[in-house]
Amino acid sequence: MPSKSNQQSREIVKVIPLGGLGEIGKNTMVLSCGDDIMLVDAGLGFPNEDMPGVDLVLPDLTYLIENQRQVHGLAITHGHEDHIGGIPYLLKHVTVKNIYGPALALGILESKLREFGLENVTTLHKVKPRQRVQIGCFNVEFVRCTHSIADSFSLVIRTPIGNIIHTGDFKFDFTPVDGELFDIAALTRAAEEGVLLLMSDSTNTEKPGFTPSERTVWKKLSEVFANAPGRIIVTTFASNMHRIKQVLQAAIQYDRQVIVLGRSMLNIADLARELGYMKYPDGLLVDVDEVKNLPDDKIVILTTGSQGEPLSALNRIANDGHKHIKVKPGDTVIFSATPIPGNERSVANTINALSIRGANVIYGKDAGVHVSGHACQEEQKLMINICKPKFFVPIHGEYRMLVKHADLANQCGVPSENTFVMANGDVLALTKNSVTQKERVPAGIVLIDSSRAWEIDETILAERREIVKDGAITITITAGANMSKLLSFDCTLKGIILANKAKGEDAAGKQISKVLENQVKQLLPKFKKLALDKKTTCQAYMHDAIKDFLKQEYEIQPLIQVILHEISDVNKKILPSSKTEEGSTGGGLGKEETQCSAD
Amino acid sequence: MPSKSNQQSREIVKVIPLGGLGEIGKNTMVLSCGDDIMLVDAGLGFPNEDMPGVDLVLPDLTYLIENQRQVHGLAITHGHEDHIGGIPYLLKHVTVKNIYGPALALGILESKLREFGLENVTTLHKVKPRQRVQIGCFNVEFVRCTHSIADSFSLVIRTPIGNIIHTGDFKFDFTPVDGELFDIAALTRAAEEGVLLLMSDSTNTEKPGFTPSERTVWKKLSEVFANAPGRIIVTTFASNMHRIKQVLQAAIQYDRQVIVLGRSMLNIADLARELGYMKYPDGLLVDVDEVKNLPDDKIVILTTGSQGEPLSALNRIANDGHKHIKVKPGDTVIFSATPIPGNERSVANTINALSIRGANVIYGKDAGVHVSGHACQEEQKLMINICKPKFFVPIHGEYRMLVKHADLANQCGVPSENTFVMANGDVLALTKNSVTQKERVPAGIVLIDSSRAWEIDETILAERREIVKDGAITITITAGANMSKLLSFDCTLKGIILANKAKGEDAAGKQISKVLENQVKQLLPKFKKLALDKKTTCQAYMHDAIKDFLKQEYEIQPLIQVILHEISDVNKKILPSSKTEEGSTGGGLGKEETQCSAD
Repeated sequence: MPSKSNQQSREIVKVIPLGGLGEIGKNTMVLSCGDDIMLVDAGLGFPNEDMPGVDLVLPDLTYLIENQRQVHGLAITHGHEDHIGGIPYLLKHVTVKNIYGPALALGILESKLREFGLENVTTLHKVKPRQRVQIGCFNVEFVRCTHSIADSFSLVIRTPIGNIIHTGDFKFDFTPVDGELFDIAALTRAAEEGVLLLMSDSTNTEKPGFTPSERTVWKKLSEVFANAPGRIIVTTFASNMHRIKQVLQAAIQYDRQVIVLGRSMLNIADLARELGYMKYPDGLLVDVDEVKNLPDDKIVILTTGSQGEPLSALNRIANDGHKHIKVKPGDTVIFSATPIPGNERSVANTINALSIRGANVIYGKDAGVHVSGHACQEEQKLMINICKPKFFVPIHGEYRMLVKHADLANQCGVPSENTFVMANGDVLALTKNSVTQKERVPAGIVLIDSSRAWEIDETILAERREIVKDGAITITITAGANMSKLLSFDCTLKGIILANKAKGEDAAGKQISKVLENQVKQLLPKFKKLALDKKTTCQAYMHDAIKDFLKQEYEIQPLIQVILHEISDVNKKILPSSKTEEGSTGGGLGKEETQCSAD
Repeated sequence: MPSKSNQQSREIVKVIPLGGLGEIGKNTMVLSCGDDIMLVDAGLGFPNEDMPGVDLVLPDLTYLIENQRQVHGLAITHGHEDHIGGIPYLLKHVTVKNIYGPALALGILESKLREFGLENVTTLHKVKPRQRVQIGCFNVEFVRCTHSIADSFSLVIRTPIGNIIHTGDFKFDFTPVDGELFDIAALTRAAEEGVLLLMSDSTNTEKPGFTPSERTVWKKLSEVFANAPGRIIVTTFASNMHRIKQVLQAAIQYDRQVIVLGRSMLNIADLARELGYMKYPDGLLVDVDEVKNLPDDKIVILTTGSQGEPLSALNRIANDGHKHIKVKPGDTVIFSATPIPGNERSVANTINALSIRGANVIYGKDAGVHVSGHACQEEQKLMINICKPKFFVPIHGEYRMLVKHADLANQCGVPSENTFVMANGDVLALTKNSVTQKERVPAGIVLIDSSRAWEIDETILAERREIVKDGAITITITAGANMSKLLSFDCTLKGIILANKAKGEDAAGKQISKVLENQVKQLLPKFKKLALDKKTTCQAYMHDAIKDFLKQEYEIQPLIQVILHEISDVNKKILPSSKTEEGSTGGGLGKEETQCSAD
């Protein structure tokens, strides 16, 4: 590549989303200018139903790995998992010496990094509202915004060619619970300097109007607390500190003590108190063991499980699986959260289970016990009006949302040729006056089985999907030297259904096994003639023959494994057998096995 | 069981839901009185994510099979799949000589029965509004109601102990598109005779207010038709005849021709015209081949796929997989349906795909292009007010809905001790004055792989789930006589992830294979000492040992298969090998294999 002077190349800023566009989650934005790269957020995403065994989804980091010498730092907007959850994985693969962000987000991040043994690979810098930090040639101002987690920021990024505003996640809450107002003035100042590009949160762009203030939840919450005859169980996102604060406040006001359940809820409650985001009297929180000593109408249980997670405390309570707490008539359960798309079914299941056991469950969008943390259409328009950007890129949303948000920008006066609906991996190259969108960088996904922090590749998923669809069939064949004879045959069916399975226990399995054994016997002689001299080739040949046969005769397409052993001369081996039992001839076996036939 | 006279036992009517309670779908209600059984509807349900490879869910029919001599007939309320889709499976297992229902439902059912070769096992009787039929000791009056499919009925069932009203699915549409009004007078008449029990549709019981009339959709529909610059693509449920009618009407009014896509849509459109439910001029519908000959603004495409079904015409159009039609900028797509719970993700994916390709997509509950076919709270209260029942059983809904609906009945004056939230399989025994709810009948589920109409049992699902979670590992071992020696070893991994898998192609697989081979070598000598003389016992022992080892060392719990061959004396077998290749010694092999060890 011809090298330009860094000065020259600083006339172009590249905007490269690696995650968060065309999806909800794993928000990860790369900005590059000259030889400098900075990141905004590094989040994680959640799998769809098509990804069995996958817990987390992360962006492909190839672009950053290839350019890691240029990475100057990462700016964090707020402490939600879809904005910071990918940082441990990022730090495993890419050197990021400096991370800047709000104290709360860094507090959450710190314990994550300890968990991964990564506490020493980077430096965390806490930032205050209006603080500016230099990340390469990017000057990043942290502008207080309002969102469902405390200590959230939008970013004004001053670049060599103009200002870029990245909203982070936001809503305009004019009466926030913590009194921390959206710093509209700081945005306006940037706007008066001129905004080259606005990148704005699209999560709620399908919803007309204005998102109500967090404070509106208080009305219904206090009404429930005033009237509940027995225990009150509240579930919300562990990170929704404003909500938790209001629940604690209601508990104090209505003279109840609070039991906090769920590891993440406990961790965040501790952290929030430690960092001064939440204040409550000693003795308000009691241990779950003490539940027996309190009258029901003096108890609030604050718990995780608002998404119906199978292992959450609430789900265990709902299904009689909790050690200390059983739900019962007289209990009032408040779902102070909406299901994330894809979780509707599991949330409904939890509500059903609670209802069966007699609890009064308060849930749903009309119940008044939840408000969103994201801007609706009118707020999104307000943001565009405040920033008056030249160019507009909707971020944080699925395609249909990005398209609608771009349309809102057009309505607010940004010409449609200046709005860009981008996909992860797209590269938007900005100059002071122009935009080109031609390049792409790798932007696949990395799938994680989080219980072990392992990466799962597509091949594995494909195998699992295949098995799920039609089951698996395993055929093991032991043949004499040169495929001279079938010494033994075994056929095992797992998760296979056959037309006549219902008729008798394993009748169908036995039938198919017999049929396949005959198939194999007919196939064996062919190998001699075909001069196939590799075991794998024999196996593949049998695999395909059996596959065709099963498809035609039984209309099934299971995952087929053919395992072929050739025993060339048993006596030779059996003779020195006493030794081999101790485990010394494994290698030799392998060698013999790979030989397969051919005259 | 002591036998009562039929006269005496007719003082009790038993209400036995086999499906539709605690769930949306597979509505199947049994009424029994003396020696007479009748059924209301026999629907099918859809699987949840926990049922890989399952297409349909049906109720357990054990109770009906055991009492099939008493079954006098089935009354159908309307032609939706969740009310008639289970009839072919019912007829396979239970003799039901007479089926009574609306002409449209029977039209749909007829072609289903032909498909299953069941057209001669029952007699279908078309009923008219207010017609009464005798099913055993039950006198069933069909009362016209309003719903999203034409020709829908509520039932007034006159029994020896009083009137039972079964609403079927309903809404109160005071301005129905087909002019067929809800026959409130017929309900009122039954109410004046006295209603012992009301069983009412709970689908929308979480929604306050009144469901808007089907006719309100016209406003937005005609607005879109008046302004769309190019093609209009409309998707809705194939069975939503009122909606389809309105789309055809809009096409006529705005001078467009209609292409119908999707087998079920085509079938129902044909049937509806044939039966006189839909009238339209010849030439309005054109074949998909003609799409090229028409200007875009003269085209309406009416298609299935409103639930994002992967194989539907719309989804193929959205993803460039349709033979004739590709979506493009200028197209307007109307989702005239809401996602059924569980389908939200696939619907969103389809909308995203259409958006990416530039279509203007109109969707969502605020868009005005869809109304529900089910009663909201105020309508449910109206129904209770009209019927003034002594006892109330909410039907057609998940538990939380049934609980809410029972609460509405209490608000309307039915005492809470007279409302019963039942589960599938519960038996409610009614007399003129009392109710007992003690007995239960079997009410499990039957899972169907519909592509082959096979039943899937729980074991198979459990195996599939296990594989999906952690993959599968297959170990095949060939040992010499009396476990004297390990002759060959093979270890195959499918869908397995290992911590260091990422490091190199199959490194982890090879490593685990080697480790397990050593494990097996150490295990083999034990069998001699343990005097285990069955192959299955050896296999189970190895299985458990390997399971523990994998869990401890690798933190994985895959499905493990151990396949053990014992070759007692190879020479004996190899000698007459030329014969066995033709496939004659299978049985003998099996016998030798089952012997395993023991000194």
